[in-house]
Amino acid sequence: MNELKVIKIGGNVIEDSILFDSFLNDFAKLKGGKILVHGGGKDASNLAKKLGVNVNIIDGRRITDLSSLEVTTMIYAGKINKFIVGKLQGLNCNAIGISGADGNSISAVKRPIKEIDYGFVGDIDKINTDLFKLLLENKITPVCCAISHDGNGQLLNTNADTIASALAIELSKLYSVSLLYCFEKIGVLKIDESEEKLVELITPASYLNLKSKGIIKSGMIPKIDNCFNALVNGVEIVKIGSPKIISGNEPYTKVKL
Amino acid sequence: MNELKVIKIGGNVIEDSILFDSFLNDFAKLKGGKILVHGGGKDASNLAKKLGVNVNIIDGRRITDLSSLEVTTMIYAGKINKFIVGKLQGLNCNAIGISGADGNSISAVKRPIKEIDYGFVGDIDKINTDLFKLLLENKITPVCCAISHDGNGQLLNTNADTIASALAIELSKLYSVSLLYCFEKIGVLKIDESEEKLVELITPASYLNLKSKGIIKSGMIPKIDNCFNALVNGVEIVKIGSPKIISGNEPYTKVKL
Repeated sequence: MNELKVIKIGGNVIEDSILFDSFLNDFAKLKGGKILVHGGGKDASNLAKKLGVNVNIIDGRRITDLSSLEVTTMIYAGKINKFIVGKLQGLNCNAIGISGADGNSISAVKRPIKEIDYGFVGDIDKINTDLFKLLLENKITPVCCAISHDGNGQLLNTNADTIASALAIELSKLYSVSLLYCFEKIGVLKIDESEEKLVELITPASYLNLKSKGIIKSGMIPKIDNCFNALVNGVEIVKIGSPKIISGNEPYTKVKL
Repeated sequence: MNELKVIKIGGNVIEDSILFDSFLNDFAKLKGGKILVHGGGKDASNLAKKLGVNVNIIDGRRITDLSSLEVTTMIYAGKINKFIVGKLQGLNCNAIGISGADGNSISAVKRPIKEIDYGFVGDIDKINTDLFKLLLENKITPVCCAISHDGNGQLLNTNADTIASALAIELSKLYSVSLLYCFEKIGVLKIDESEEKLVELITPASYLNLKSKGIIKSGMIPKIDNCFNALVNGVEIVKIGSPKIISGNEPYTKVKL
């Protein structure tokens, strides 16, 4: 089976133009099948503030009313997605930018209201593997933003980490998939003798331990949950680290069953 | 050869939600190959004003500095394009929204500076017919916004009428193409005994006449030029009219050699 890399790039990297340019250069050069998934949270928050749209983020999840959805659609699917695609084209990588509505690539269900009403936030229902296969087999590289749709005309804001994991899982039925979460740090960090050190390996047992000690907390918990979910469901390799890990021999955090 | 309809929808229709919903319903139901091209100028101007970005339009062409390009990318490729694609998916039309950078679909050259510096405005260089063929043959309907790219990492603002015409021309090598310009009027109008009447047919000879009398002027001139350019270069049918012309027996202006 052919290899496929699903790479998620974090918002803080996107905002650092030198780091991001260097990442896109490395990404463009990667051989074999690849999919890029991006968010871009801070940029959306900045635009929302300029437009007087309320920004409300709980545990890293954006409460999305219609105005907020419009802002995220403009930033994720418009500004950032097309900037990336334009740059990759200039680097001889034939990218195509898609939201979950495009080609019905990612359909989702509006999150039911429990304690919190997240508004127009979608929980992924189905990945259209046929579309991704069609693009990949024609040497077209999908660049996915963090927007899905409900199949009834409504766009939905969806967490980019979860999109990356869901794509990796579904496409592991067709390809041998690696899932790489790239962000501004070199991996999951712990404080050891008042020094920040890399956690080189996270297993289900060590994860429980790291959570109980508060080393892994808040926004990192759903990320690691996504990693294990991917591994349990057919993804072969999961790494968390800096943008450099996609090509070099940089250190990173390996998540393993 | 199979039939293909290239349909351009104007910004004033997009802003009228009832008219636009009705158009998208009709568009979704159209049989055979189809491509939708849209602009969305006023929406971009509104966002620009809110963000304090200067709006400068000369003869219907937007002077596009970097801030203005960012705004048009957010509105055209983000807000409007994804709204349309989401709606079409809900109407069982498997649409994919693309800018000219996506899949390298439309490459362009930054307009040389003569009397006016249009900034980041692109004149179309090449249509990637392979990509459109791939999508159409897989029953995926392209929805194109008015953004192209230079192949070196730069997005460019490009007139939607011209994109529609260029697509129609290039794809007429593969399909039997009709080009339909839909806007808020029933076609090209003339004042006859103080009444607005439809110009039912425009030929090269009558075009000269209509221009000399000032009946066809300003923004309508490049539109009609695009129509004739399409006809001279292989497009079979060209119509200008209301959104209703894509499915019904509504009156319209026929442009014919």
